Amino acid sequence: MLVYGKNVIREAVFQGRPIRSLKVDRKFSDHRFLAFLRDKGVSWTEVSKEDLSRLAGTTSHQGIVADVKDYRVWSLEDVLDGNRNPRLVILDGIEDPHNLGAVLRTAEAAGYDGVVVQKTNRAPLSATVAKVSSGAIEHVPVIEVTNIGTAILSMRDRGILVVGTDGAATTSYDEVRSDTGLAIVLGNEGDGIRPLVKKRCDILVRIPMKGKINSLNVSVAAALMMYRTMRD
Amino acid sequence: MLVYGKNVIREAVFQGRPIRSLKVDRKFSDHRFLAFLRDKGVSWTEVSKEDLSRLAGTTSHQGIVADVKDYRVWSLEDVLDGNRNPRLVILDGIEDPHNLGAVLRTAEAAGYDGVVVQKTNRAPLSATVAKVSSGAIEHVPVIEVTNIGTAILSMRDRGILVVGTDGAATTSYDEVRSDTGLAIVLGNEGDGIRPLVKKRCDILVRIPMKGKINSLNVSVAAALMMYRTMRD
Repeated sequence: MLVYGKNVIREAVFQGRPIRSLKVDRKFSDHRFLAFLRDKGVSWTEVSKEDLSRLAGTTSHQGIVADVKDYRVWSLEDVLDGNRNPRLVILDGIEDPHNLGAVLRTAEAAGYDGVVVQKTNRAPLSATVAKVSSGAIEHVPVIEVTNIGTAILSMRDRGILVVGTDGAATTSYDEVRSDTGLAIVLGNEGDGIRPLVKKRCDILVRIPMKGKINSLNVSVAAALMMYRTMRD
Repeated sequence: MLVYGKNVIREAVFQGRPIRSLKVDRKFSDHRFLAFLRDKGVSWTEVSKEDLSRLAGTTSHQGIVADVKDYRVWSLEDVLDGNRNPRLVILDGIEDPHNLGAVLRTAEAAGYDGVVVQKTNRAPLSATVAKVSSGAIEHVPVIEVTNIGTAILSMRDRGILVVGTDGAATTSYDEVRSDTGLAIVLGNEGDGIRPLVKKRCDILVRIPMKGKINSLNVSVAAALMMYRTMRD
């Protein structure tokens, strides 16, 4: 698949992701980046900025486009087996690639172990997701499950506390204990978590809001929850 | 100026912003929204979706485009006079309209009083800023200053604690006291806060990160700082 952007390609190189071809703007001016590629034994061909934009289907490529091996998705077992104090985010009905990418980026910084999405409505692990994640897609597993409600039951069986975020909840988000495995569930901005998924959560919490519109972006809500519940 | 999106136009109507004309997709299906407009005495003309996209220059208009009076910027005095415990965000060298809009949206929810930007490099208060802010642009003043360094001195003279965010700082962001007026300074993702601005801050704090890339989006960093320092 084609990916673009310096952070995305740097992390792909670091992680040893197979790179079939790499194209760089012939006016590319980040010489440290080119030295890094040379140092790692990665070769490239030089093309025009216009060719890169045509190839990437966007102008946000930062002068570098690569054809790499596809990103894979993981199973819950892959990530949970052997992890005694996991931290997961569950995205329920959130299909926007920007939101998935943004959540991956923050999850990487917050030391979270994975982002769970339902097979039927996950955003494809596209160049957009990779770019918005700033390369975090290399480090934070996207976990695909058939059904989020069932996955929650299986997490609870493993002793993971499943915390849903809900504007109508009476418990504040800063009351969540963080001495246990945790999974944070976020719903989409319009409708919230689906009722059947909500019922399966151990507790529901709300992020306090003090304004009139009181609308947080999903990736901001995810960041606030993850940072309140990071491992020490 | 032209703006688009349901939240943006709803808040404009609520705030009494003069609306010169309003165009709605003739297949617009949110009847509650139309009832709201009718209730507020706002009239509209129906056009095709394609016309709206042409007019808005984007397809993200949600079926509604308005020509409204421009958003204004504020002075520091406008916002600080009479406010004994203010909360401000200062964006240093952040020119991206998406970041400004996203920060406004979270500031509204966190009860922050304004977002300070430098005249020479602020993003224009465009339809994009309004849309990304989800209408919060109506409620949270964008404060324009000639020079951020000078503005910081004037805030400190008023007893406001000016807190810079810096990856190299040794103090953690959760040690910031919140019993005082506060201004949080954020720099751009590549370079951070400019050295001369950094020098003027009372303290520098870092947001903890546990990964390998450790890069937070500006609007996420702003959200984490604002939510750690909200007024009770």
